[in-house]
Amino acid sequence: MPTITVEGPPIPDIERKRQLVKRLTDVAVEVYRIEHITVLIRENAPENVGVNGQLIADRKKK
Amino acid sequence: MPTITVEGPPIPDIERKRQLVKRLTDVAVEVYRIEHITVLIRENAPENVGVNGQLIADRKKK
Amino acid sequence: MPTITVEGPPIPDIERKRQLVKRLTDVAVEVYRIEHITVLIRENAPENVGVNGQLIADRKKK
Amino acid sequence: MPTITVEGPPIPDIERKRQLVKRLTDVAVEVYRIEHITVLIRENAPENVGVNGQLIADRKKK
Amino acid sequence: MPTITVEGPPIPDIERKRQLVKRLTDVAVEVYRIEHITVLIRENAPENVGVNGQLIADRKKK
Amino acid sequence: MPTITVEGPPIPDIERKRQLVKRLTDVAVEVYRIEHITVLIRENAPENVGVNGQLIADRKKK
Repeated sequence: MPTITVEGPPIPDIERKRQLVKRLTDVAVEVYRIEHITVLIRENAPENVGVNGQLIADRKKK
Repeated sequence: MPTITVEGPPIPDIERKRQLVKRLTDVAVEVYRIEHITVLIRENAPENVGVNGQLIADRKKK
Repeated sequence: MPTITVEGPPIPDIERKRQLVKRLTDVAVEVYRIEHITVLIRENAPENVGVNGQLIADRKKK
Repeated sequence: MPTITVEGPPIPDIERKRQLVKRLTDVAVEVYRIEHITVLIRENAPENVGVNGQLIADRKKK
Repeated sequence: MPTITVEGPPIPDIERKRQLVKRLTDVAVEVYRIEHITVLIRENAPENVGVNGQLIADRKKK
Repeated sequence: MPTITVEGPPIPDIERKRQLVKRLTDVAVEVYRIEHITVLIRENAPENVGVNGQLIADRKKK
């Protein structure tokens, strides 16, 4: 602990995942003053996320 | 917010996902009287879910 | 399974919780064609939720 | 309920998943004295998990 | 990682929480062969959990 | 989406929560290049978290 879970769209580029983990961890270390931080990245397919009643997959088609 | 996460078995048909997102959102809008609703659908493989100590994958084999 | 988790603001009225659980369950039963549904309601204090970088607690003050 | 969610690395062997579900359930039944237990196993790719600011995927390369 | 989250009813007795954490951890260490395990216990009020469309709080009243 | 959930110990100071939300959001906006970010802070009581088989509450007693 702390554990940070990020739910978002897929991130195709591992360098961006590296940045995300590194920078979220830096923020958490400073705010919590605790060293041991875990980050989980969850990549959600556009057909599994709905915003305001509509699938992201359908929004993109337009 | 609100965010609704649904953990369930795989849904093979995108039309059913569309219905799920649309209808869960309608309920949440009415009950919370808030417009911005996100729905996350999680599809769990039968070998990653256990009910009462037994994998769903094993139950299906019988 | 399925399990539906709703993250939202506090709901002060148990009758609205009753409605939320009842109606989300009805939707899930129809879409999944599975009878056993669990719903978890999470009530988040406004000082523990940030939207677009700002705490809900701060937004309300204005 | 109760529902136990395990976030971990991939488990390549279904027999180990079987053991995990069986044994976590046994513990929960004893402690909660409730029979109906669900276990969800989540397998996280090493490029989606960061520990102390570093992706597991990068740690393994060394 | 691994992180084990247990969603259940309130546990009024800290000794039972101690047992829960100790024993879930033992199982996870054996199955994952990883030493660092975190367990989160979540206690859900009966008015925030619905099973099959009914709040636990209402079920208890009968 | 994206939604960032932080599981950690209690944060007694709202200014630190403000900082946490603001800075996690800034990171997410940059990495995802998406504007709409939600952050949920979860504060876990020391008797509800176990690390390596021991409750945090017990560790503090020593």
